[in-house]
Formats: sequence, structure tokens, C-alpha cells
Amino acid sequence: MIKVGIVGGTGYTGVELLRLLAQHPQVQVQTVTSRAKAGTQVAELFPNLRGHFDLAFTEPAQEKFTDCELVFFATPNGTAMQSVPYLLNAGIKIIDLAADFRLKDIAVWEQWYGMEHACPHLLEETVYGLPEVNRAEIAKARLVANPGCYPTAVQLGFLPLLEAGIIDPQRLIADAKSGVSGAGRKANVATLMGETGESFKAYNVSGHRHWPEICQGLNAYTEKPVDLTFVPHLIPMIRGIEATLYASTLRDISLEEIQSLFIQRYQNEPFVDVLPAQSHPETRNVRGVNMCQLAIHQPHKTVVILSVIDNLVKGAAGQAIQNMNIMCGLPETSGLTGVALLP
Amino acid sequence: MIKVGIVGGTGYTGVELLRLLAQHPQVQVQTVTSRAKAGTQVAELFPNLRGHFDLAFTEPAQEKFTDCELVFFATPNGTAMQSVPYLLNAGIKIIDLAADFRLKDIAVWEQWYGMEHACPHLLEETVYGLPEVNRAEIAKARLVANPGCYPTAVQLGFLPLLEAGIIDPQRLIADAKSGVSGAGRKANVATLMGETGESFKAYNVSGHRHWPEICQGLNAYTEKPVDLTFVPHLIPMIRGIEATLYASTLRDISLEEIQSLFIQRYQNEPFVDVLPAQSHPETRNVRGVNMCQLAIHQPHKTVVILSVIDNLVKGAAGQAIQNMNIMCGLPETSGLTGVALLP
Amino acid sequence: MIKVGIVGGTGYTGVELLRLLAQHPQVQVQTVTSRAKAGTQVAELFPNLRGHFDLAFTEPAQEKFTDCELVFFATPNGTAMQSVPYLLNAGIKIIDLAADFRLKDIAVWEQWYGMEHACPHLLEETVYGLPEVNRAEIAKARLVANPGCYPTAVQLGFLPLLEAGIIDPQRLIADAKSGVSGAGRKANVATLMGETGESFKAYNVSGHRHWPEICQGLNAYTEKPVDLTFVPHLIPMIRGIEATLYASTLRDISLEEIQSLFIQRYQNEPFVDVLPAQSHPETRNVRGVNMCQLAIHQPHKTVVILSVIDNLVKGAAGQAIQNMNIMCGLPETSGLTGVALLP
Amino acid sequence: MIKVGIVGGTGYTGVELLRLLAQHPQVQVQTVTSRAKAGTQVAELFPNLRGHFDLAFTEPAQEKFTDCELVFFATPNGTAMQSVPYLLNAGIKIIDLAADFRLKDIAVWEQWYGMEHACPHLLEETVYGLPEVNRAEIAKARLVANPGCYPTAVQLGFLPLLEAGIIDPQRLIADAKSGVSGAGRKANVATLMGETGESFKAYNVSGHRHWPEICQGLNAYTEKPVDLTFVPHLIPMIRGIEATLYASTLRDISLEEIQSLFIQRYQNEPFVDVLPAQSHPETRNVRGVNMCQLAIHQPHKTVVILSVIDNLVKGAAGQAIQNMNIMCGLPETSGLTGVALLP
Repeated sequence: MIKVGIVGGTGYTGVELLRLLAQHPQVQVQTVTSRAKAGTQVAELFPNLRGHFDLAFTEPAQEKFTDCELVFFATPNGTAMQSVPYLLNAGIKIIDLAADFRLKDIAVWEQWYGMEHACPHLLEETVYGLPEVNRAEIAKARLVANPGCYPTAVQLGFLPLLEAGIIDPQRLIADAKSGVSGAGRKANVATLMGETGESFKAYNVSGHRHWPEICQGLNAYTEKPVDLTFVPHLIPMIRGIEATLYASTLRDISLEEIQSLFIQRYQNEPFVDVLPAQSHPETRNVRGVNMCQLAIHQPHKTVVILSVIDNLVKGAAGQAIQNMNIMCGLPETSGLTGVALLP
Repeated sequence: MIKVGIVGGTGYTGVELLRLLAQHPQVQVQTVTSRAKAGTQVAELFPNLRGHFDLAFTEPAQEKFTDCELVFFATPNGTAMQSVPYLLNAGIKIIDLAADFRLKDIAVWEQWYGMEHACPHLLEETVYGLPEVNRAEIAKARLVANPGCYPTAVQLGFLPLLEAGIIDPQRLIADAKSGVSGAGRKANVATLMGETGESFKAYNVSGHRHWPEICQGLNAYTEKPVDLTFVPHLIPMIRGIEATLYASTLRDISLEEIQSLFIQRYQNEPFVDVLPAQSHPETRNVRGVNMCQLAIHQPHKTVVILSVIDNLVKGAAGQAIQNMNIMCGLPETSGLTGVALLP
Repeated sequence: MIKVGIVGGTGYTGVELLRLLAQHPQVQVQTVTSRAKAGTQVAELFPNLRGHFDLAFTEPAQEKFTDCELVFFATPNGTAMQSVPYLLNAGIKIIDLAADFRLKDIAVWEQWYGMEHACPHLLEETVYGLPEVNRAEIAKARLVANPGCYPTAVQLGFLPLLEAGIIDPQRLIADAKSGVSGAGRKANVATLMGETGESFKAYNVSGHRHWPEICQGLNAYTEKPVDLTFVPHLIPMIRGIEATLYASTLRDISLEEIQSLFIQRYQNEPFVDVLPAQSHPETRNVRGVNMCQLAIHQPHKTVVILSVIDNLVKGAAGQAIQNMNIMCGLPETSGLTGVALLP
Repeated sequence: MIKVGIVGGTGYTGVELLRLLAQHPQVQVQTVTSRAKAGTQVAELFPNLRGHFDLAFTEPAQEKFTDCELVFFATPNGTAMQSVPYLLNAGIKIIDLAADFRLKDIAVWEQWYGMEHACPHLLEETVYGLPEVNRAEIAKARLVANPGCYPTAVQLGFLPLLEAGIIDPQRLIADAKSGVSGAGRKANVATLMGETGESFKAYNVSGHRHWPEICQGLNAYTEKPVDLTFVPHLIPMIRGIEATLYASTLRDISLEEIQSLFIQRYQNEPFVDVLPAQSHPETRNVRGVNMCQLAIHQPHKTVVILSVIDNLVKGAAGQAIQNMNIMCGLPETSGLTGVALLP
């Protein structure tokens, strides 16, 4: 059994890591920390875990993880970078589910996250944990930056088109929508049921932190830098992201050709599922599972890609476990074979 | 008191007409028909109307409306066109909330609605009931085609830009999202709570009936025909449409200039409200009221317009009453002065 | 025009007062205070109020209300009692929507609310603002304690049975369910969409502050003190309370007899609507309006009363305006004639 | 591998059986029938099953099941009884998830279900599939009637109290609430999102088919027949039942004593979880898993039991698989070890 730890286990990515790891055949959660809930049984805070864990939250302290092979950070932005150097020195592998190590350009990071980076020297070696792009690097990495939820859904949809060079990188539009769990489990008026129920809105249209992350990922596949318009929206529900992606083709290309391109690109990917052309994926199709469903449409001149994930799974905890499997030499699908809950 | 009738009062646009007309100071609902519910009190089917109506549904029959000045059709597509000629001959004004008279091109209509039109000779005189565009014609009309819900939200957002000639009409994208009430109140697996709750999806991406209606409306303001990509989505909630509109400007233009353009265009419109630039309108802001809230953003090169309406009010029954007010010489805001329900 | 003020206008009862008063023909809101939002336009914080108010929140200060005839407190428990004596001395009438003045027994109040009462001498003159019980006293009152939401729904359901002496007061059960807005608009993990959506639970089963308030109200109509089991639950929605009330009859009595009793008891009440026996009122029937719908069932030996209100209207702001109308000599239904929003 | 079949796989209990059986290590679904969807791949109708099943719905025909050891009926009431005799004769075990075999008294069954029973001679040998009560009989049964969803939640809550003889069986109240999936996946106005969203109501207060089923189950444990008042309600969500149960104790008994009683009664039950006294179980704690969480309260004189299940799992498909495991000699928890999805 591989022993792992979780820093910051009381948020939604924390409980989702615990839920998925409880069913992982080769992994044991050794330690889960929380400043606020130290001493509380995890199953008391999250009663869905009753019978699956006999484990209490402990005060965060770097020594707690010494017998762990790998540690997940499910903490707010800016926390992991304080402890990662110590843990790496202790020979522990790290997956950060927050944004501390996602951007390669330190200036861009500091601008968008509004703080000074604590360990910029680690950014170069950090591997961006999108396995469909960086599998080989992830396998060798000590430190993996787990992608954001929107960036996962958007990149997986645009990548085959950009790699094939058939769309104009300077006319990309991503109209993305997320359930409220993406905003985390913290006291906040804006994400109360009373504020988010039975209503729909765009937010952060003039700038969202996931925009530079997506651009960085897409730029690796284009000569001209991408020009992406990214508009996030809040859906009155808990889990799920749907991204509707718009692109202009650079030459005449049929829907069948694009469909083949996607099929081919993702044929060996266990967690990307290309639906028949003109399908309409629903977020519930992937609720609770580590899967991205994609579907391609081509009304008129524009290519439209529909991409759905569960923001807490393929958009966070599930992808982190996929990365852990790769980093630790386990079968990539280990612990990730569940079936989505529908209805 | 102006006497009006409603054909087909058991759907969501029917009950919404009744709710709004109950509060209209100059109008009395004389007759409301329903084949299925004839004999039932309207307040029995819709208990929110208790104390506001002492009226039963009656069998539909054209003679029932002889003392009405105006009749609303809140019927499925293809129904109004059977009775409209008779009622017009009887001197009764008509507002059709369905799609029978929305498209000027009979061939296009028959293709999208899959039936033969019963009175194509009326299409020419029919006025498309978007008051912000056709107020003067509506005032003189006998027959008004009330716009669809998506077309209302999308046209009001694009029109100022197209009229000013500052965007490329061949690169329009409308990413639109609607609550489930837009699909009506009929037995249907696809709109069960179990199918639509806690999930989000695009639908009809390859073709939606509102697409030709929007194009027809926008084409009146451009030399080159518009090329519009229109993707509708279903939100897990009941009421509200949010449309996120994307356009490419033809010249350098600042956000301030665009904002002024919108302010000016809608300054005398009682039911279009231009929010401060970079606002994020929520559908709940207009829940239950006849209002379109618009907000303009300009991240990077693309102009992004956010447009929200209540699909059952400005997108259906409220706009119909606005049209009735204009057609009958009443103050345009009469009966439409309520405040949206938030939260 | 009667001038009124609102202390603490940024919560859900605050915005609901503003929504309803915007439509009140004889009342003008002069002042609305908020420590946190002083300087902000009310229509900026609550965009549903755009076009209805040109008014900014101001710092709370007792002098601000000197030209008001009446002041509403829409503040957390414990706030109103600090300022009420000053305002009463200034000749201003008060309606407190919080709990400061609801309980007559100071010891019970201090036990349940966990603080010392600032003006216990005012408790005696305070009138409990349930108009269906205390209309005459309210008309003469300077200080009205607006009832809690659960207490309104529960008392209106039990009262006719207790007044008639036909049920055992020592075997009362109220199984009550509320939308999340009842918990207010404050940052709180427990009422996030992520915590309350798609889930249902009982809470505070061993003791809820509304229990002594309900008992106090019911005890006035019984010789033996009532023994009430009160279990509140949280519904994954925003607005509405449904209370299912169970009582044991003391003698054989038919459903028809009980139905007549209710009809008679509430025949002159504008805001209590007794549905036909065996109806099933839905909370949406009264969404946004000041109405309590009741229905009576008698399966087997037990009488079952179903009671629905909108917790923010008849359970808070609407009832407060009803009390204001009575206190100020206005028609009781003034400003409260809207139609519920369904669907 | 045990081969099983499913009759009627297109409803919510059908897809839930498929979801759970996809993860069952010792069972293979051989055949799944549907008249309406014959020829369609199950993963096309239910895209959450993509990658888990390569199986199409087939026309229902009794011969299709000849190589199955066990067949589940996930059909409407009245369907299973037509085919069960044939299949039993062919040596196939049966679990009926509908109500055809739940009631022992044929007259009561025919009264509540409004049809003639097709094989009343089988009612005696049928075992009511509540493993916590009838485990030994289930192990030997050919034909198991899987309990209703409400009856599961209510019986598990009342049974320890009735078995111990400490409550008055003639004063039982069950106030039960269910998500909308309990009404099934069929075209129906009453369960549209537009009708059930953002609203709450009681229904069938004067009589629900689960009432005689609950009474039959409870009567086995009392001398005096139970008198149960059962009020079901509809929650605006998809999955989950919460039942709040009220009972009067026959003697003084402490909360601790009652808690011990429950702990002892269910100590060996893998799928009943007694929470610490005075807990508040939420339906999401058991979303997607075969578990009943119970909590005991004792405010004043009344005992209050809170019981939550997922209506589609412990209330239907999960309990059916639990019964299958017992009937087929598999470990009772096989395929049922998942963790609930929270949030």
C-alpha cells in the first residue's frame, strides 16, 4: 500500500480526495490535516465517509508526512508553496490541487494571484498535470501542478484542433459554466443557496485566473499566440462544468474529419470520451467520475466543441489521483473506475 | 376596461398572462379556453390565482371571443393560424405568443416548423412584436407575432452594435441558456426534474427554430447577411434566460464608446436597462418582470454582451402585454410595473 | 405619504421590505441603514430594485429616523432592543422583524437567545404582531414584535382547533420545513449551495428558538399548557415554509365540521386562505405574496393540517407591512395585493 | 459469474440497477429488456454507462432469460405478475422492485392497486425483501418482493421501538419526504422541473399505497394493530428520502436507553448506520449508496427518529442487489461498498 497525506482536507476537493481514495485498492490515507478541524474525525465532518475512514484531522505540520510517499495539497492558493520545498527535500512527491505551481511565468502568476511566490525556483521543474498532454513528464515528476477545473475542460476540447493546425488560434472563444462547488467550501455570501439558487449569471468576464492558465497550455501548440475570450458562468447546481468552445477553421474541413481527429487523438486516453458527432453531453453523465466527455458540432462556419467534466473529479481530485497513479507507477485507472450517478 | 381573451390558458405562458393581467388596471380577462380543462376554474389549476379570478376554462370556440377587443394565443405552434383569419374578420386584434407568424419567408417557416402554413397571406401584414424595433407598426397592427424568448434576449443585445455598423455581422456568436419553463408545461420525459435537475447541457446545437427568427431580425440592420452561431443550453432552474453574445468589432472602439451607444439606443425604452459597463446581470434580477438587463464587456478584442430576461415575461407574456398596451393605446408600462423577486 | 425607515436593509427581510414597499401606494421609504454598505445605492446591492429606488444605505444612527412615522428593524436578534427606547421616545412606531420582543417571559427569552435583554420594561406593552389574533391591539400599538416565520405558519394552522377546544393540546406535533432564505443572508458554510442543494435534513430537533414562541402563542387558547413537538427541516430551495401539523381530536368530529370551523374562523381574514378539504397546498402557490394557505385532512384518527407561507412575506416582511397598515390606519391589504409567481 | 436479467431497464430503478451491477464483481447482466427502446444500446440512453456496458435493450420475452440465475423486474406495478410464474417454473429466481408481491392480503392489494392480481397463489411463498427483518427467509426464497422506498425508511426507524414494546403502536406518525425520482422516469406534467422545482408540498395525505405496506410490516411486531398516520411530501431535488418518525413511549425511558436499543438492534447490519444520538442525518450522506442512517432524539415526551436513505438505492436497486446477494449465496455487501457523493 502506498501511503499518502492530504493537507487541507476540509474543503470540497479534500472530501472528494477522501471519497475516491477510500476506494483505491493500492493507497492508504495516512494523514489529513486541518487547522480548524484538528481532532475531529473526518467521518464526523463528512458523514458520507462513515465506515470508510477511522482517521481524525490533525494540525498541519510538515513532520506529519514523513512516512508518506506522496502528499496532496487541497489548500487555498498560496499555502502549498510554503511547505513544498521542505517536503520535496524529505523525498516526498507533491501534487498541488491549488494554483501555486500552475503558471511558468512568475510575473504573470504574481499579477493574477496578488502575492509574492515563495519558491519561484521550483516552477521550472514543476510538471503541469494534464496527463493527456504531459503523461511522460508526470511519470518522472516530483512536483505536479494539478490543472484548474475550467482549464481541464477547455484545453481538452481545443487541443486536437490546435495540434492539427486547423483552427485560427486568434479567434478562440470559451463560454464555460460551472456548478457552485467550484467556489469552494468557505463562508461566503456570494455562494449561499439564497444567492446562487434559481439564477444564472456570468462572472469575472473581464478577467479570471484560469485565463492565463488556459492560454499557457494552448500556446504550446500554436505558433501565433492564442487569443482566447473566456467567459465563466455560475450554474445553480453543485457539481459539473460544461464548456462550449467556438473556433474558426482555417480551411474547409468536414465534421467527419474533425470527428476522426478527435477519435484518433484520444483513442488511448482512459478519461477522455469522444461522443458521436452532434451529441449533447450533460454534466450528469460524468457526475462523480474522472471523465471528460466531448462532442463536436459544426453549425455553419464555426466549429463548436462541447466539453463536460465533474469539476471536483476530472477538474480536481480525480485528476490528482490519476496523476498520483502515474507518478507512483500504478495503473492509471486504479481507483477511478466508478460509474457516474444518473439521475 | 378593455376585454381580452386567451386561447390555451393552461401552459406556462397562459398562467403568466393571467398573473400579469390580474394586476392590469385597464384590462379584464373575459374568456380563457382550454380543450383539456374546460369547466375547471383557473384558480383550481393554478392556485396562485385564488382570489384573483372567478373564471373557468371554456372549450375553445371562435364565437367565445366576440366581445373581446384582443385575443392572445398561448397555444402550441400551428394552432393560432387556424383561427386567426376568423377573429381578424370579426374585428378582433391578435397577439400570437407562438411562432405561427414570426417568419416572413413562408418556405423557411414550413421547413423549420414541419407543417404547411394555414394563412400565408397574413404574413406580410403581421408585425413582429419587438417594441424596441417596431413600436410604430405595432401601434397600427391587427396581428402581432410575439417574439420568441431567445430571439428577444439575443436581438436586444446585438441590435445597437449592428445598427451602428461597428461589428462584423458574419462573426456573431450567441451562447444562450434557458430555464426549463421555456420547454412548456407538457408531459415530457426530457423536462422532468429527474432529467434536468442538477445537470447542464447544450441542446439543438445543429439547429434551433429560434435561429432563423433571430437572423431575420438582425438582417434588417446589416447589408451583408448575418452569420450567427447560436447554441442554446438548458439550466437546472425554472425561469430565466441569459445570453452571452460575442462580436468582433470592425474598427478600434473603446468600451466607453460602446457603453454610450447602448445607453443612447435604449434611453427611452422602459423595458431595457443598460447596467454599468462590466456588470454581471443575473437572471433573478428580472424574475417575474418585463425587463431586459444588458451589460457590456470588452476583454481583449471581442465585445461581450450579457443579456438577461425572464423567458416567461419579457420573453413571452410580459412582452405580449407590452404589445397589447401599444396596440390598444394604453400606457406602454401599464400592468408591467412590478418588482423582480430576489432572492 | 407615510414616511418609514428600515434599520438593516441588506438582508433578505430587508430587500423584501424594499420590494414590497416599492409597490405600496401610501408609503415612502425615507431611510435605510446598513453599517457595512453605507454609501452604496440599494439598487446596486439588489439589482431587482433598479428603477424603483433612488436611495443609498446610510450609517445607522437614531437621528436619521426623526421624520419617519414608523421604523422597521430587519436586523439580527439583539440589535433592535438597543435603539427602540430612543425611537419610541421620539414618537416613532416600531416593528421589529427579529425576535427581541417576541417573548413575554424575560427569563425564557434570555435562555433561548443567550443574552441579556436591554429593555425588558417594554415587553409588556409590546404587541405580538399576528393580525389574525391581535388586530385590535396592533392598531393601538407603538411597538410590534413581528412573528417568526415558523410560528406564523404553525399558529395559523393550530389556532382554530385549539380555540374550539377540540384537540388535545398536549399532543401537538409540527413537522415544519423551510427554504434556505430563512437562515438569512450572511456568510455561512452551512447555507452554501454546496451544503444545502440536493439534500434534505432535519435540524435543531432538540430545541429551536421558535418553539417557545409558538408555545406562548398557543397557550393563550388552552387551559392545559400545550405540549408541542416541533421539528424544523431545511428544504433545498430558497423561499417557502410548509408545516404539516398533527393533532388528536378530543371527540368524534368529521372532516366537514373541521373544515367549517376553519372557513368560519378565517372568513374575514384577507391573508389566510382555507383551501377545499383534502387539498395539497404547495409553497409556490404563495411565493412572493402575503398569504397563508391552509388545508385540512383527516386520515384515520389524526387531524392533519397543511400550512404554507412564503417565509419572507407572510413569515416576515409582508406581515410587517400588514402590521404597519394596521398601525397607521391604512387599508390592511394596501401594497399587498400581488399575485404569486408560479411556476 | 452469476448471470442476471432485468425486465424494464429504462426507468430510474433500471439505470440504477445497471450502475450498481456494473461494479459488482460476481455478477454479469445478460439481458435487459424494454419494449420502447429495443435495439438501443443502454449506454446510448444512459450515457453515464458508456464504457461499462456493451449491451442493447431487447424486446421483452420470457425466453430471453433462460440462462439467467435471477431476474429483476424494474417495471410498473402489474407487469411482473404476468411473467413471474413462467420464470419461476424455469427455475429462475425473481426480485420484483415493483409492488406486485408486497402485500400478503390480496383484497388489500387489489383495493390499493386497482387491478386484479394475476397470480395470488404466489403471495404466500413470496418473501418481503427487507433483509434486516427477513434475512433467513430471503436466503431460501425463489421470489422476493423488494420493499418500497418509504416503507424501507419508515420500518427501519420504527422497528427497534416496536420490537422492544416501548412505544404505543396506535400513535405512530411518519412525516416522510422524497426526491422526485421516486415518481419514476415517465412523461408526466406533475413531475416536470417547472412543477416541482423551488416548491414543496405534501401529497396523497388521505391515502398512499405505501401505507398498507408499512402497516403490514410493523404489525408483525405488535399485538395491537398499529395506527399509523403517514404523510408523504415531495422535495425539490432528485434523490433521497428523509422520514421523521414520531412515537409516544409507554413508559419512562431515557434517550441513552433508546440509543442503546438501536445500536444493539443494528450492530450486525452492514446497511443500517445508527448515528450518535441527536445527530441530524442529511439525505446526501447516503446519496448513491445502500445505506440507511438513523438518529434518535427525544425532545419532551415524544421520541423522534430521523431516517434517511437514497430512494433509488436502499429504497430500490441497492436493496434489490442486497437481496440478490443473499439469495445467491454471495457476500451480502458485494458490489455495494461505494462511498456516497458529497457534496
